[in-house]
Amino acid sequence: MSDKVYAISKVVGTSKKSIEDAIDNAISTASKSINNLDWFEVKETRGYIDNNKVAYYQVSLELGFRYEK
Amino acid sequence: MSDKVYAISKVVGTSKKSIEDAIDNAISTASKSINNLDWFEVKETRGYIDNNKVAYYQVSLELGFRYEK
Amino acid sequence: MSDKVYAISKVVGTSKKSIEDAIDNAISTASKSINNLDWFEVKETRGYIDNNKVAYYQVSLELGFRYEK
Amino acid sequence: MSDKVYAISKVVGTSKKSIEDAIDNAISTASKSINNLDWFEVKETRGYIDNNKVAYYQVSLELGFRYEK
Amino acid sequence: MSDKVYAISKVVGTSKKSIEDAIDNAISTASKSINNLDWFEVKETRGYIDNNKVAYYQVSLELGFRYEK
Amino acid sequence: MSDKVYAISKVVGTSKKSIEDAIDNAISTASKSINNLDWFEVKETRGYIDNNKVAYYQVSLELGFRYEK
Amino acid sequence: MSDKVYAISKVVGTSKKSIEDAIDNAISTASKSINNLDWFEVKETRGYIDNNKVAYYQVSLELGFRYEK
Amino acid sequence: MSDKVYAISKVVGTSKKSIEDAIDNAISTASKSINNLDWFEVKETRGYIDNNKVAYYQVSLELGFRYEK
Amino acid sequence: MSDKVYAISKVVGTSKKSIEDAIDNAISTASKSINNLDWFEVKETRGYIDNNKVAYYQVSLELGFRYEK
Amino acid sequence: MSDKVYAISKVVGTSKKSIEDAIDNAISTASKSINNLDWFEVKETRGYIDNNKVAYYQVSLELGFRYEK
Amino acid sequence: MSDKVYAISKVVGTSKKSIEDAIDNAISTASKSINNLDWFEVKETRGYIDNNKVAYYQVSLELGFRYEK
Amino acid sequence: MSDKVYAISKVVGTSKKSIEDAIDNAISTASKSINNLDWFEVKETRGYIDNNKVAYYQVSLELGFRYEK
Repeated sequence: MSDKVYAISKVVGTSKKSIEDAIDNAISTASKSINNLDWFEVKETRGYIDNNKVAYYQVSLELGFRYEK
Repeated sequence: MSDKVYAISKVVGTSKKSIEDAIDNAISTASKSINNLDWFEVKETRGYIDNNKVAYYQVSLELGFRYEK
Repeated sequence: MSDKVYAISKVVGTSKKSIEDAIDNAISTASKSINNLDWFEVKETRGYIDNNKVAYYQVSLELGFRYEK
Repeated sequence: MSDKVYAISKVVGTSKKSIEDAIDNAISTASKSINNLDWFEVKETRGYIDNNKVAYYQVSLELGFRYEK
Repeated sequence: MSDKVYAISKVVGTSKKSIEDAIDNAISTASKSINNLDWFEVKETRGYIDNNKVAYYQVSLELGFRYEK
Repeated sequence: MSDKVYAISKVVGTSKKSIEDAIDNAISTASKSINNLDWFEVKETRGYIDNNKVAYYQVSLELGFRYEK
Repeated sequence: MSDKVYAISKVVGTSKKSIEDAIDNAISTASKSINNLDWFEVKETRGYIDNNKVAYYQVSLELGFRYEK
Repeated sequence: MSDKVYAISKVVGTSKKSIEDAIDNAISTASKSINNLDWFEVKETRGYIDNNKVAYYQVSLELGFRYEK
Repeated sequence: MSDKVYAISKVVGTSKKSIEDAIDNAISTASKSINNLDWFEVKETRGYIDNNKVAYYQVSLELGFRYEK
Repeated sequence: MSDKVYAISKVVGTSKKSIEDAIDNAISTASKSINNLDWFEVKETRGYIDNNKVAYYQVSLELGFRYEK
Repeated sequence: MSDKVYAISKVVGTSKKSIEDAIDNAISTASKSINNLDWFEVKETRGYIDNNKVAYYQVSLELGFRYEK
Repeated sequence: MSDKVYAISKVVGTSKKSIEDAIDNAISTASKSINNLDWFEVKETRGYIDNNKVAYYQVSLELGFRYEK
């Protein structure tokens, strides 16, 4: 598996429901323009508050994917 | 929206259920003494273990809010 | 409670379901070889992607436990 | 000057003009509710973009001040 | 505003005049190839020195922008 | 003990004698305005030098305390 | 040389031979889709182990390059 | 002295008296199960507060030791 | 491959020859007491100097391995 | 340009006017005792507050310069 | 007090007795070659272990001092 | 060996060949003006790219050395 090269893109997914759902949204949207998504790493977890409740989560991710040949 | 000033308070929410629930508890309790809560950022996620299970999550947050005039 | 000494082990739990489930798996497996588990701290949250969905979460934890006498 | 105790508050100043102006706004607003402001430290410099220009700077600061006796 | 997804690009702007001007140059140039620029965060501030004066500032930024549909 | 919420304040204690004495001074002074102090974490240890000796230590701490109900 | 703008991409090169070779592979592959590569910075050095030997090195790099006009 | 291999364990020592005493307690307890302890590095200094005084210090250390042959 | 649990050990390999050789020495020695070594991550690269030359490299690694059942 | 060796010195410039002016002051003063100054990197931006205004900025820099032969 | 320029040197003090004594030794020795020492900041606290006791503390400090005119 | 005091200088070595060679060049050049070099720690590994190949490595090091008496 060696000598492959990967690129890493940083994206931010949001969700009203959960941290996991924000990750899913980020990956799902990114997959429309990036092929071969392979792994992710959570870099920051934030969110906005409205009326004293979480309005939505914002999870920033690094996404790793294999370079197309 | 410029020239506003915000303050940031650090709080720790706990929950037996989930990381999201610990965030909710922190925001709900903080909102009793802080008005205009606007955003949060997760800084650390910890927890205590009892009988080889998670007893409760402890999530430390920075909470941003607008200064009252 | 003072003058006790604790050790810290680093483990990585995985789960197809959620971040909390990956933490549970890490603690449950570690508890088979470590007694007196007391606390955890999440250090990194990653995961693998398969077919544009999260295949599984990988959550690395520090686990604190009391030294046996 | 020793044995004094200081507190540190975190605030975010904003400005359309410059990073220095955002710092001034943060200090000016905080000084209405905090006495004895003594020093600051810039922790993050961010901003919002509108129409491909900086709409305003957001500078987060730690503000140090002496405890009132 | 939830469930939106953002991407983050890292750029370095330079300027002979000021840190703010280097930020402006980075945003202005990036906007030619990226639509919907929304926020920036300063990651590093450096520069080159010539004849014992600042020759130019180099400010590295993360730029956030909404994914096109 | 779960579902409790804690707040964290940052303070700087100073002392001519020792790091531990600076921590004591910070906690003692903070306790006059904060109830239920529960834990601390040392964030930075600095000091001023006078006549080639330590004039006083400055220890910055995060102080955790339970929210009053 | 001022007022130029650079972009930074993050890539991961792999190699069975050495850290330097993994850097070369990353740059060589990235150069097929990025012109004007100018500098790199090593961010992480990892690798996989097979049969108690390094199977391959994984070196993540930030690559800086000049924006095309 | 080259080509030796060392392992690093993380432990937390506690003490009612001082930071140095917490370090001593950690090393003394760890030495009952680890031979050849060689160096330490302080990673975090925390503590618990009781009745507005330090109840005990908690000092987390990395302990380096030579692998037994 | 999900729901597996991994442990992480920190070791320091040394070598007179190269950084890669210090990594090899660390893995080779650790493999005598740890089964199923899977990955490594370089955390620090240091070394000792003797007579104005590198006497030996010291590379500290985190080693990941699967828990035995 | 390879095989050159550079040294890095850390300095703190101060200014009543601006962050850029504090950088200029640091470089100008350092250039009296250091030749061949080549680059700088801002490490911390702080300042003192007097009468609820910025009294002066303190900008700590790393300064890179070529070793004299 | 503005427009002054300071330099920062990094030193490591050692002591068999305490962390504070290691700081004193560093400052005392540095003061023989550096005038106008003004402040210090502890960056790392380490030490060597001999016979399961602390042989000596190693405290690395940044020392700030005013540039001579 | 206690109560000795060390100083730390930061240097950047460059090499067309390898990371290790850049470290050697830094130490060799620094040793012309610094006696008693004792250890190094790699802080950053960067480099310049020319014609899609590594033109030279730049390795920044902290160099520790004993104070002359």
